[in-house]
Amino acid sequence: MMDKRNLTLLTDLYELTMMQGYYVENSANETVIFDMFYRSNPNKNGYAICAGLDQVIDYINNLHFDDEDIEYLRSTKIFRDDFLEYLRNFKFTGDIYAIPEGSVIFPREPLVKVIAPIMQAQLVETALLNIINHQSLIATKAARVVLAAEGDGVMEFGLRRAQGPDAGIYGARAAMIAGCVGTSNVLCGRMFDVPVLGTHAHSWIMSFPDELTAFRAYAKTFPTACTLLVDTYDTLKSGIPNAITVFKEMRAAGIPLKNYGIRLDSGDLAYLSKRAKEMLDEAGFSDAVISASNDLDENIISSLKLQGATINRWGVGTNLITSKDCPAFGGVYKLAAVKDDKNDEFIPKIKLSENAEKITNPGNKKIYRIYNKKTGKIIADYICLEDEILSEDESLMLFDPVETWKRTKLNAGSFEVKELLVPVFKNGECVYKSPSVMEIRDFCKKELDTLWDESKRLAYPHETYVDLSQKLWDMRYELLQKYHYQEL
Amino acid sequence: MMDKRNLTLLTDLYELTMMQGYYVENSANETVIFDMFYRSNPNKNGYAICAGLDQVIDYINNLHFDDEDIEYLRSTKIFRDDFLEYLRNFKFTGDIYAIPEGSVIFPREPLVKVIAPIMQAQLVETALLNIINHQSLIATKAARVVLAAEGDGVMEFGLRRAQGPDAGIYGARAAMIAGCVGTSNVLCGRMFDVPVLGTHAHSWIMSFPDELTAFRAYAKTFPTACTLLVDTYDTLKSGIPNAITVFKEMRAAGIPLKNYGIRLDSGDLAYLSKRAKEMLDEAGFSDAVISASNDLDENIISSLKLQGATINRWGVGTNLITSKDCPAFGGVYKLAAVKDDKNDEFIPKIKLSENAEKITNPGNKKIYRIYNKKTGKIIADYICLEDEILSEDESLMLFDPVETWKRTKLNAGSFEVKELLVPVFKNGECVYKSPSVMEIRDFCKKELDTLWDESKRLAYPHETYVDLSQKLWDMRYELLQKYHYQEL
Repeated sequence: MMDKRNLTLLTDLYELTMMQGYYVENSANETVIFDMFYRSNPNKNGYAICAGLDQVIDYINNLHFDDEDIEYLRSTKIFRDDFLEYLRNFKFTGDIYAIPEGSVIFPREPLVKVIAPIMQAQLVETALLNIINHQSLIATKAARVVLAAEGDGVMEFGLRRAQGPDAGIYGARAAMIAGCVGTSNVLCGRMFDVPVLGTHAHSWIMSFPDELTAFRAYAKTFPTACTLLVDTYDTLKSGIPNAITVFKEMRAAGIPLKNYGIRLDSGDLAYLSKRAKEMLDEAGFSDAVISASNDLDENIISSLKLQGATINRWGVGTNLITSKDCPAFGGVYKLAAVKDDKNDEFIPKIKLSENAEKITNPGNKKIYRIYNKKTGKIIADYICLEDEILSEDESLMLFDPVETWKRTKLNAGSFEVKELLVPVFKNGECVYKSPSVMEIRDFCKKELDTLWDESKRLAYPHETYVDLSQKLWDMRYELLQKYHYQEL
Repeated sequence: MMDKRNLTLLTDLYELTMMQGYYVENSANETVIFDMFYRSNPNKNGYAICAGLDQVIDYINNLHFDDEDIEYLRSTKIFRDDFLEYLRNFKFTGDIYAIPEGSVIFPREPLVKVIAPIMQAQLVETALLNIINHQSLIATKAARVVLAAEGDGVMEFGLRRAQGPDAGIYGARAAMIAGCVGTSNVLCGRMFDVPVLGTHAHSWIMSFPDELTAFRAYAKTFPTACTLLVDTYDTLKSGIPNAITVFKEMRAAGIPLKNYGIRLDSGDLAYLSKRAKEMLDEAGFSDAVISASNDLDENIISSLKLQGATINRWGVGTNLITSKDCPAFGGVYKLAAVKDDKNDEFIPKIKLSENAEKITNPGNKKIYRIYNKKTGKIIADYICLEDEILSEDESLMLFDPVETWKRTKLNAGSFEVKELLVPVFKNGECVYKSPSVMEIRDFCKKELDTLWDESKRLAYPHETYVDLSQKLWDMRYELLQKYHYQEL
């Protein structure tokens, strides 16, 4: 089920004013390269997980200005009639390369590379950033939460606090990619064929004369998925005893007890879960699932585990679906090269900044990921120019792009390489078939296994190296010298 | 342009499992009251701005399970066939009351009251919370930013960092309601007929051989809206001098200079704006607009103003569109009463909690806002039962609902009252016509004028009183006593 909305106008006005500018300047067909990349990992994490490519593909495939779009643009009185007529036949005809969804990614490497006539490349900037920034943010946050849960299932429960319908739908999609076991969001379940989860709310209990009657009614309707919310009145004195009464009645009635248990939603979850476990064990329900929710995040889950909480399923809402401690992924989209029509070569472009971190990498680039052949773990990522080829059969000298005297030699045969960017569009045609969300989830799990544990720590993780080839470094240095000359 | 997506499945699975439970229990037609309210203002603000009602209306009007929805639900193997058949003819037949969009609101008062058969009232919970939580969050954040700008125009520029397309579209809508002068988001402009704004990006400059050529080209295409981005290479040495050159050329060519200026997007905005103002003044362009962007929020804008920055237009992106320092609005939806079929009366319901702040207000309620007759400023909000009537002609005793000895007497004739909740749906029919976004924006401006300045402070604002009527307070106390008896 594709999102069939026409999102062509989901763009910043300046993309359209620049397009008109290029149109007037007759540079409309100049081919350019834009890179989408980000500068630092959200939540001070050691990596990020990229997501959203499938929705970018839908967006590009759907890209067209319909009559109402054009009439709206005309009504703004900003645009010329000839430009508006041009838009009527607008379509994307360029190439797009991207790192597949669910991949582990690092700062400063291109996640998406767009090679297209400048007007097209410019138009798609905003929606592409919006989609990939959002889903990569939530996937990265969810990966942290899933890691903290140490193998327990994490359920995505955030729809009601998500920043609008799409944030709920696509946020849940991203959370699934990063390893959640299911989502409460039914529409996400329908659109992406992922497991949907959930039981009942306090209102269920409150609508019955008493808690025990409410539990019995729920067990009658859902005997094979009976998770009872125990904190409406008093968790230890009422909720858990009533749940045990119902479980005993089910057992006495010969109903097979599987996939059953309780949910804690308030109070001290460490204390309550330990007492709940004792009470359930004592009554012979030691396989009951103890799930918990209530403003959880990766740090609280870690802390509860350290305290011996006996929770084995975690419902995570607000903090995951909004990535609360870092609610934006700072992806940017920068011009890297302009094609010279005379000799068909790309002229590299650089964006300067007083802040060295904000200076871009020029040129038409690709990325190799270098793995330790024995352990399968990532040694470094290596950004080079499109015509460079890394061979596993030759030794390789890596150097830090800032502190260039720091050099590491990799011996031939000790490492393996993989190219990260894959073709997604060629001449405007989609040439990439997105895997299903559950397939991407499997892939992401394998990707996370290529990280050293030190890179996965929640706090102060090891930063993975992203190095430049000598050729790219030289090109960048030359452009910097050219532009950054000053006399005092 | 309405959002025509079928969002019926935009709900937590547990709403549907509870619905099936009510269906099986034959309590499907029991009429209940749910209140949507929130517990504390985001960003430690002194108030919030409610928004999103128009999208809730679209959602309710569109509510239906189509064949594909039902087949999807069947495929989950959670639901009974008779229940799924029931869903086929499902429609909303209840009443909804709400506080109009753009209103100033306070914690603990019902923003939306749903009176409907329990299955219907339950289903709409998640989407209603999702929509109103999101837009109220962004409207409240935007009100802070607009306030900090002290009358300068604030432009919403956040689409690329919003949490998905809807967060960009409806977040911009909410920002407009709260007083922004325009948005860069063209789709939002089209859907809600609000001003769209923007000029060009660094890529425009970089795609030309040099900055001056790029500026000239832009001025040629947009002579009447010529804002030039001056920080691509060097703001003071290159950007501003080149911009002045172009403005001089326009003046020399007899092009009327209006709505023109520069945009600063990096560096020390206080210093650069002051130098820019000097340079523009000296060249005879003292009416040029100096706009600024770059990770701004209300605190940075306040600080820049304190330092004498000469910026008079503010482009605010990430921090506004994600409400970065508080990215979730904690709206909840709680059962308040269940109708007794025997005597057609509502039986009040209460949700207990160890945390006194989380205890709900029971019963069928309404809200009066009480204004000082002389100043027009808000004295307090007053929640009472539906059958109570507040008269301006009688004196009124207010008391703090926690510290009940704190009493304030309002003399007859000294105050005016207004009911806050208005009918939106009656028997499933929409009876409310939403104003346009720009009309809501005007209304919101008037609403903000009813707050004391002390309540609008960015830090440590005065908290407005939300009091209960004696009758409601007594009902609540009685229910608390009934449920919260324990023996140690």
